[in-house]
Amino acid sequence: MEPLQKSDKYEIISELARRRGFFWPSYEIYGGVSGFLTYGPLGTLLKQRVETKFREFFIKPFKMLELESSIIMPAVALEASGHVKAFREPMAACLECKRRFRVDHLLRDQAEMSDTAAEKLSLKELAAEIEKLGVRCPECGGKLGESNYFMTMFETSIGPYSEAVGYGRPEAAQGIFVEFKRLIEIARGKVPFGVVQMGHALRNEISPRQGPIRLREFNIADIEFFFDPKEPHCPFLPEVEKDTLQLIPAEVKRKKTDKAIQVTVKKALEKDYIKTEWQAYFMVLAKRFLKTLGVPDDKQRFIEKLPWERAHYSKQGYDQEIYLDRWGWTEVSGHNYRTDYDLKQHMNHSGADMHVFQEYSTPRKVEETVVSPVPAKIGPTFKADAQKVVTLLSKANAKEVKKSLDEMGHYMADAFKILPEHVKFTNKTIEETGRRFIPHVVEPSFGIDRLAYAALEYAYGKKEDRALLRLPRELAPIQVAVYPLVSKDGIPERAEQLHKALVKEGFAVEYDESGSIGRRYARADEVGTPLCVTIDYETLSDATVTLRDRDSWQQVRTKVEDLSENLKEYFDYKRDFEALGKTI
Amino acid sequence: MEPLQKSDKYEIISELARRRGFFWPSYEIYGGVSGFLTYGPLGTLLKQRVETKFREFFIKPFKMLELESSIIMPAVALEASGHVKAFREPMAACLECKRRFRVDHLLRDQAEMSDTAAEKLSLKELAAEIEKLGVRCPECGGKLGESNYFMTMFETSIGPYSEAVGYGRPEAAQGIFVEFKRLIEIARGKVPFGVVQMGHALRNEISPRQGPIRLREFNIADIEFFFDPKEPHCPFLPEVEKDTLQLIPAEVKRKKTDKAIQVTVKKALEKDYIKTEWQAYFMVLAKRFLKTLGVPDDKQRFIEKLPWERAHYSKQGYDQEIYLDRWGWTEVSGHNYRTDYDLKQHMNHSGADMHVFQEYSTPRKVEETVVSPVPAKIGPTFKADAQKVVTLLSKANAKEVKKSLDEMGHYMADAFKILPEHVKFTNKTIEETGRRFIPHVVEPSFGIDRLAYAALEYAYGKKEDRALLRLPRELAPIQVAVYPLVSKDGIPERAEQLHKALVKEGFAVEYDESGSIGRRYARADEVGTPLCVTIDYETLSDATVTLRDRDSWQQVRTKVEDLSENLKEYFDYKRDFEALGKTI
Repeated sequence: MEPLQKSDKYEIISELARRRGFFWPSYEIYGGVSGFLTYGPLGTLLKQRVETKFREFFIKPFKMLELESSIIMPAVALEASGHVKAFREPMAACLECKRRFRVDHLLRDQAEMSDTAAEKLSLKELAAEIEKLGVRCPECGGKLGESNYFMTMFETSIGPYSEAVGYGRPEAAQGIFVEFKRLIEIARGKVPFGVVQMGHALRNEISPRQGPIRLREFNIADIEFFFDPKEPHCPFLPEVEKDTLQLIPAEVKRKKTDKAIQVTVKKALEKDYIKTEWQAYFMVLAKRFLKTLGVPDDKQRFIEKLPWERAHYSKQGYDQEIYLDRWGWTEVSGHNYRTDYDLKQHMNHSGADMHVFQEYSTPRKVEETVVSPVPAKIGPTFKADAQKVVTLLSKANAKEVKKSLDEMGHYMADAFKILPEHVKFTNKTIEETGRRFIPHVVEPSFGIDRLAYAALEYAYGKKEDRALLRLPRELAPIQVAVYPLVSKDGIPERAEQLHKALVKEGFAVEYDESGSIGRRYARADEVGTPLCVTIDYETLSDATVTLRDRDSWQQVRTKVEDLSENLKEYFDYKRDFEALGKTI
Repeated sequence: MEPLQKSDKYEIISELARRRGFFWPSYEIYGGVSGFLTYGPLGTLLKQRVETKFREFFIKPFKMLELESSIIMPAVALEASGHVKAFREPMAACLECKRRFRVDHLLRDQAEMSDTAAEKLSLKELAAEIEKLGVRCPECGGKLGESNYFMTMFETSIGPYSEAVGYGRPEAAQGIFVEFKRLIEIARGKVPFGVVQMGHALRNEISPRQGPIRLREFNIADIEFFFDPKEPHCPFLPEVEKDTLQLIPAEVKRKKTDKAIQVTVKKALEKDYIKTEWQAYFMVLAKRFLKTLGVPDDKQRFIEKLPWERAHYSKQGYDQEIYLDRWGWTEVSGHNYRTDYDLKQHMNHSGADMHVFQEYSTPRKVEETVVSPVPAKIGPTFKADAQKVVTLLSKANAKEVKKSLDEMGHYMADAFKILPEHVKFTNKTIEETGRRFIPHVVEPSFGIDRLAYAALEYAYGKKEDRALLRLPRELAPIQVAVYPLVSKDGIPERAEQLHKALVKEGFAVEYDESGSIGRRYARADEVGTPLCVTIDYETLSDATVTLRDRDSWQQVRTKVEDLSENLKEYFDYKRDFEALGKTI
């Protein structure tokens, strides 16, 4: 507990979240384990709503494929992807107080070495630098021991022989890349296409933060969007090119300012702030998506990663940040241009061919340089080997032969030294029916826990000193609360009956008969329930109920028989609260 | 590959699943890793549908709470729950060929020792038995080395200091038990109530089976239903008591027959085949649930676990089994009466109080025996200590004092020997406002992967030699396929427009324009898409489309404007195919 920050929104939301069952730190009865969070009943529902919205926003309109693979991955796959190398941090323990520290951080803090410089050093070199620069334990001033790598993936072993190392996946993306061959088959060989995986991911963070911000086990939604690097045009761009983005491109960031520039998507592409059309497109969608979760435009921005800040697979990376009360600008999604890095790595490590063949709609004429042997010159030079040389040259790559002749004056065909006079180059027009290539990938990757938290923080407000979650209708964990006005005279029975009917219609309904009606309304407001239905004596006689609006506290009276249909329209945003009945 | 079984349904479904993207073995490009399965796009959707159905069936009607906790759990929690001890198997390696075997299995196979007998032996005793009984390597006949325990949970370490051991959770249930205090608070202290967790679970199986049956990473749905052991009555029982169950209770099983008896739920409880009303109730629901997934009643049964077959936490356990073509009777859910075992264990290990206080609706009069000291007799015997003895006796538990006096003729109050003459017993009527107790739990636990597989196997059929998945409407991964009859004259554009409109209405829609219409229908049948919509030249002139039924191959013609509304009713089972338009 940090008393100085006690009244920030994080503290308020956390207290509410714990008390009402949105989320809380896991394993409290055992003193807690840092970096793990449990979603209670309301939080589980909220998270499901965020995921549903994500699917509606990103997956369905683009016919993306969703996939679910395992959380434990064999080492071989994560070695190929580069994660085994990238997810380790050099650590050293103080010989006096035994505390452990990240060596690169110590070098940065005590010797002003940059993170990049430190990253390049081997364990031996790190030890030498510590010695040379006199880096000491920041806690007790003691001498530091040997450096060792700490793996920030969770390591385990698979099967009874324990020699098969496995890791908890640090991202959902790799589950997609390793299955690319199956996926492209399902997509009938055609790019562009997108694949999504949502689920738990694991990073054994050295210092996890409080709450849902830096967890060791977290929920991720990775979109891998595959496209032809030679046809990188995004056809949906015209729909969004006038949208503006708050952008901090690398060139602005290098000036040590974090003042965002406001540009249209069109301009961001023209100015080369964003290098890939699809990436720009998904960044706009991400901005719109966050807005539907309740985060206004001016609380959002995109900040580019400088080359040394980027993940190992990324050629260009933007973080989508939103403003949170306690943490300031906080990443909620990453937008990386991963190129063909991952597919190539898996191709090289597994031997599986990751190329796709894209047929052109009409065959294309392509100019090609062809190399051919000149037998008249080859015969006299190579004699008995002449035929062999002719065969070798007819299979040779024209570009390579030309390059070698230009640069070195000869070309080696196996052991035979070919001189310029032995070959001739001709240009030929050939018809290409298509092209083989490894698709490139842009990756929008969302942290679901942060999105759910952001929705809560931005929904939080007060009305007449009472807490209110103004969650968008489609995010509210409970859509409708059903309350009997009193607990007698058959009114609870009538309310239960309505509750059941609404559940059957598919609504997320709560039933509550304890406490005064005012207290129940307050409880509903606090968890963001948009509508309360109250059953009273009138209901028994004329089959009408009172509907109450969370945000305005207004009430209308409506017929039970119209309720379900009207509610459906309300939650589809086809009807406003006022149109749900007669104002009381 | 087992050529002899090549034509069984598992082989057929697996081939279809791989080819069309339901599921396949993970990490194929790296030669595969046993025990891991990847859900492709259609499988992911199917699994989501099964989960949605599960929620509609079990969670919503009973206002159960859903929770989501972490997959990695700290060792302390799984030590408390008994899993660290229960999830280990004695293994020994052959000194010759180095292969490793489960020692208990070797003793069973070579020395006819029962699993229970073997389980009770320590590592030393196992070694002695191996020596004594001459158990040898079953592969090469070599001598066996030392026995060691193999942990069948995935082990890892949490945080940078690696001394905090963690495990992948072997069940979702523990995430509920450790959070019981928060959950009962959210349930406002009232039992009965149910909590559900669905998600990935991990067991480092020594020999995982093929396909979705015994996975190392699997999907589980655990219901923990908490109730007062003194008020174990299930109020919903009358709704189901005439339902019949195919039951193999322990007493039948002991006769070495696996012939199920057919009994009503009422009788199963009367005969004490099922000891808990709530357990019986959930078993019927489980049967009904499997039926909605497509598994007929006669392909389902419940088989009781004999005491030594039960999990360490279970007082009574039934497996729900269904008949699968390759594996015969296969468990799809487990129904265990876990009593207060788990809550007690966590209470003892953490010190957290797991009692609930249940207020009675009206205070109850309870007869209580009270013990009181007889000063006239105590004075002479204990002299200076008399006052101390009086105090001790007024605090003593009457039952304990009586029992001791009855059995031994005296009772020890600290160091003082109390004889019958020193005390008197009186009956008193007191008013109890409620009762403190640790709730008991019945646990229905479902294997989601097996359910999804079962739905596929039972949906599979043939019509005119073509494969057809007759999936229930609400399980079909794709609800509607939209096909332009030809790829020209604006027909694809019109089809795309309809596709978009249906997506917007929330349907799971596929668009496909490649291949003949017949081939497209066949592809849709094979993945269980109930309806195909075809757009043709007529559509352009009169805004009607053809709808085609998967199961009957019948076609009707309907207006585009009615489509969305009609489809909603169709998928809610409010309208049959014939009522979707005019028969063609």
